[in-house]
Amino acid sequence: MIKISETTVIRLTTYLKYLRQLEEKGIELLSSKDIAEGVGIPAHNVRKDLAFFGEFGTRGVGYNTKSLISSISKILGVNKKWNVVLVGAGKVGAALVTYDIFKKRGFNIVAVFDSDTTKIGKTIGDMTIMPLEEIPGIVSKYDVKIGIMAVPLTHAQGIANLFIENNIEGILNFAPTFLKVPKSIYVQNADFTALLESITFKHTNREMLNFKFI
Amino acid sequence: MIKISETTVIRLTTYLKYLRQLEEKGIELLSSKDIAEGVGIPAHNVRKDLAFFGEFGTRGVGYNTKSLISSISKILGVNKKWNVVLVGAGKVGAALVTYDIFKKRGFNIVAVFDSDTTKIGKTIGDMTIMPLEEIPGIVSKYDVKIGIMAVPLTHAQGIANLFIENNIEGILNFAPTFLKVPKSIYVQNADFTALLESITFKHTNREMLNFKFI
Repeated sequence: MIKISETTVIRLTTYLKYLRQLEEKGIELLSSKDIAEGVGIPAHNVRKDLAFFGEFGTRGVGYNTKSLISSISKILGVNKKWNVVLVGAGKVGAALVTYDIFKKRGFNIVAVFDSDTTKIGKTIGDMTIMPLEEIPGIVSKYDVKIGIMAVPLTHAQGIANLFIENNIEGILNFAPTFLKVPKSIYVQNADFTALLESITFKHTNREMLNFKFI
Repeated sequence: MIKISETTVIRLTTYLKYLRQLEEKGIELLSSKDIAEGVGIPAHNVRKDLAFFGEFGTRGVGYNTKSLISSISKILGVNKKWNVVLVGAGKVGAALVTYDIFKKRGFNIVAVFDSDTTKIGKTIGDMTIMPLEEIPGIVSKYDVKIGIMAVPLTHAQGIANLFIENNIEGILNFAPTFLKVPKSIYVQNADFTALLESITFKHTNREMLNFKFI
């Protein structure tokens, strides 16, 4: 069995993001040192991660930007488009619908749902808000495997259950709670506060201890 | 030198979030197994993390919820309130201003800024949008150490520079780019797409390989 940590996967997404920026700037060749400096990850980690996935570059030449993008995209499964649904047409939902990076990176929000009947039929970005009852039809029509939820804490588990009943396999959860899901379902919690707490941790402890962040 | 990984810090924030939920439910005592099951992290990791920070619980009794919350809060530096500023009054900014979890967890957005002069004076949530020129005064008045930026890619580095000039030490960055900052500045990139890519990675590779996610 191959073991791979969540952190390695997040590092791969980081490399991919940076490589795409370099590609847009017309940079065709780059070294592991270039990537390391660009993303702030030590060069030996970059080389190790890429070698683990079979990308070795050419000695003295480095990596070809386009082909590295293509390899990492394939590993991450983003060499194809993904249709996703969003539940929750509040402020966070509105930000996500208009977040054009999703589409640019291959994630297409095909429908927005809300349980609040007063919101049904209204628009959010260029999408019309639909009732939850339409989830099964949309998921099946667009072969949706990923659901995003930006709902209040108290609604989160119910929506997760609804996703799972409708064969959704991955959930991006913006609700500040922990979902109970079967092992076969992948959940990512988007927690802005955790990111702030990670900043205050560093700020607080650098004055008390000589921590090295690895 | 004590080495500690970013992942460990994020795990601590996860424990804290879960413990607060249990506290609200009135649960006063819990075991590492309870925490493990609640957050989906193996129990031996939970015990190791807590022991590393000097929390051992009581054999046969477990941890006291309140005192564990207090210890982890102290470690993370969130046993006190933090004033933060936000630059960028777009859709993501609007979601952040009204994101009440920030205040609940001790992060108080004291001002919202935007470089777009047509937005100045308008309101977002219950805040009035201010021009960038007011950053120095506000940062100094409210002793702000953390800046959040939800600005377009092309503005991001300029805002980061402005933050740093004004003695801000930690940046939560919602712009899809990499900031160049001195080593003393802590940056956290909030990347929704990376979370989706991490889901597609798991979905894609479980059919090809027998990965174990650790």
